[in-house]
Amino acid sequence: MDALQELELYKEIVNHQLNIFFKDRLREVQDIDPYASYMMDLLREYTLRGGKRIRAALMYYSYKLFSKQNIDEAIKGSIAFELIQSYLLIHDDIIDQDFLRRGKSTMHKMYEEAHLKSFGEEGSEHFGISMAIVAGDISNHLANLLILNLNMPIERKIKAAAELNRVVHRVLYGEALDVLSQTKKKISESDVMKIHTLKTASYTFEGPLLAGAILAGADKSSLKILSDYAIPLGQAFQLQDDILGVFGDEKKLGKPIGSDLREGKKTLLIIKALHEADKREKKIIMAAMGNPNITTEQIEDVRAVMITTGSLDYSRNLAKKLIRKAKKSLEKLKGDKEARNFLEGIADYMSEREY
Amino acid sequence: MDALQELELYKEIVNHQLNIFFKDRLREVQDIDPYASYMMDLLREYTLRGGKRIRAALMYYSYKLFSKQNIDEAIKGSIAFELIQSYLLIHDDIIDQDFLRRGKSTMHKMYEEAHLKSFGEEGSEHFGISMAIVAGDISNHLANLLILNLNMPIERKIKAAAELNRVVHRVLYGEALDVLSQTKKKISESDVMKIHTLKTASYTFEGPLLAGAILAGADKSSLKILSDYAIPLGQAFQLQDDILGVFGDEKKLGKPIGSDLREGKKTLLIIKALHEADKREKKIIMAAMGNPNITTEQIEDVRAVMITTGSLDYSRNLAKKLIRKAKKSLEKLKGDKEARNFLEGIADYMSEREY
Repeated sequence: MDALQELELYKEIVNHQLNIFFKDRLREVQDIDPYASYMMDLLREYTLRGGKRIRAALMYYSYKLFSKQNIDEAIKGSIAFELIQSYLLIHDDIIDQDFLRRGKSTMHKMYEEAHLKSFGEEGSEHFGISMAIVAGDISNHLANLLILNLNMPIERKIKAAAELNRVVHRVLYGEALDVLSQTKKKISESDVMKIHTLKTASYTFEGPLLAGAILAGADKSSLKILSDYAIPLGQAFQLQDDILGVFGDEKKLGKPIGSDLREGKKTLLIIKALHEADKREKKIIMAAMGNPNITTEQIEDVRAVMITTGSLDYSRNLAKKLIRKAKKSLEKLKGDKEARNFLEGIADYMSEREY
Repeated sequence: MDALQELELYKEIVNHQLNIFFKDRLREVQDIDPYASYMMDLLREYTLRGGKRIRAALMYYSYKLFSKQNIDEAIKGSIAFELIQSYLLIHDDIIDQDFLRRGKSTMHKMYEEAHLKSFGEEGSEHFGISMAIVAGDISNHLANLLILNLNMPIERKIKAAAELNRVVHRVLYGEALDVLSQTKKKISESDVMKIHTLKTASYTFEGPLLAGAILAGADKSSLKILSDYAIPLGQAFQLQDDILGVFGDEKKLGKPIGSDLREGKKTLLIIKALHEADKREKKIIMAAMGNPNITTEQIEDVRAVMITTGSLDYSRNLAKKLIRKAKKSLEKLKGDKEARNFLEGIADYMSEREY
């Protein structure tokens, strides 16, 4: 079985776990207020909507690297970063003013629509934002409680919880720098890579891998190797994300192509293209960037510029180089062979992913 | 020394601790980006602005009830709920669209002003909201990390961290119900008391008291007594807050009188007044509620209605009753006498507080 099949298989396990988890949480909050149940239900739907569950899989396989015991509890714990993902995405969608997430309304849009339906238009936008801030916060506390309440050795749980908070804390500076970068005229390649590292690499790869390994009792040198694998792979993951956002398949992605352009997001693709572009090409890019009414033709023109300037190749090659670096780090990794194969397979899959 | 003097004294200790804490955090984030340091500095200023530090004091005295060891570490830990307070206030101010907090700009206003200064007006409001969402999130992770990294027995730390997340998780439903209550025409007294309990009583009193007692190794029955003291006292605290918000002294409070009226907040004062009011009085209240241009005369008229309808007396008497209930619970409490006296003194102070 290759890593992609394992990922697909584990996705089912994760979704099953999430269903059980939210059923328990729904029972817990029903004494608070019917509206608390309603909120939990929206969070359940949002979290279960899809996604590759790569964070959960990484945490699980990282646990399996170093322990064969208490696997059921490791599976339970592996959804922690999926809850963190919901928390960060909900807040991120408010910040990016996005309306769609995995083909459906973002959290603030869901609450806005609910307000519109029951109480009318006035104040509905702010109501949506308010409730989504709270819903994101709730998901974060649920993730923390999940880790703290696992049936595992407490000295490991406390380290894993600290790692979770440490990593997410860093993600937030990445988020802030990303927001700030929208206001700046000039952004360098190293600025973009810093944001990628903070915002994506840390919590998509490093956080789950370290948390899983810590719960399994891994030693410090193994954690170091996992970080050396996680950071370049996470950077490559984000570069691929940016490429797919312009060149990918809308159906497979579940979000509109070109939304990064529409938002004026300064991806490496854009920065490199602007750097290499002639006057005419610069004009094409600038007309598309941050344009809420961007047309399909404009997106196609930007694509052409990214190809002719060599920007697409540059991002692709950098991603490949980072993936090689990540795989190189794995050579030193000890632990369960099957789990190591999975991590190597994930690195291979990163070079070819389509969604 | 009475409780108020002790509170004043401990406030100095807390502020000193907060200064040390933020100095360390500033050092930690300076490798990330200069903007991370800037953000941390704003959070430091915001957190150090003032406030009674009642949460920190409660956590400290609650620890002292059950342990005489490791007091320095208990003091360090006691700022956790002050960081939680910053987190919740920052998000709450976005939600309530408040501009002032303790006499200065709210967090989202500070970022909005910074944007205005450096990048112009366009997008400054959303920039402020975005950065403040992130800043609040950061403060929450700092609180979690603080507890998890204390030099204390790990089985106590893990319970204290779980308690912190459990309590704050409940606060968020209170926040949501509060937002929801603004959209509803009819709110009952029990709805208001539920919001008070969830939003204020739990994390102002119960959270810090339980976290402190847990860190000191208190038994379950003591935790139960502390909850029985905390919840009614917290409810009374909020009732007093609502009263001071209309009848208090602007200078002592650090926020404009009548802002609850301006926001259309459905406090018990308002609900009771509306319930007992005649036609003319109802009109006075409704003209003031949610009126962004409310005049000093209008606030005075609302005050008069609250007095003549008996609404002010009702809230005051209920607060007194709740304070008596809280004090009654204390009778069963064991532990250090000085600390018990402090808790009793705090209950007495609640009946008379002016800010």
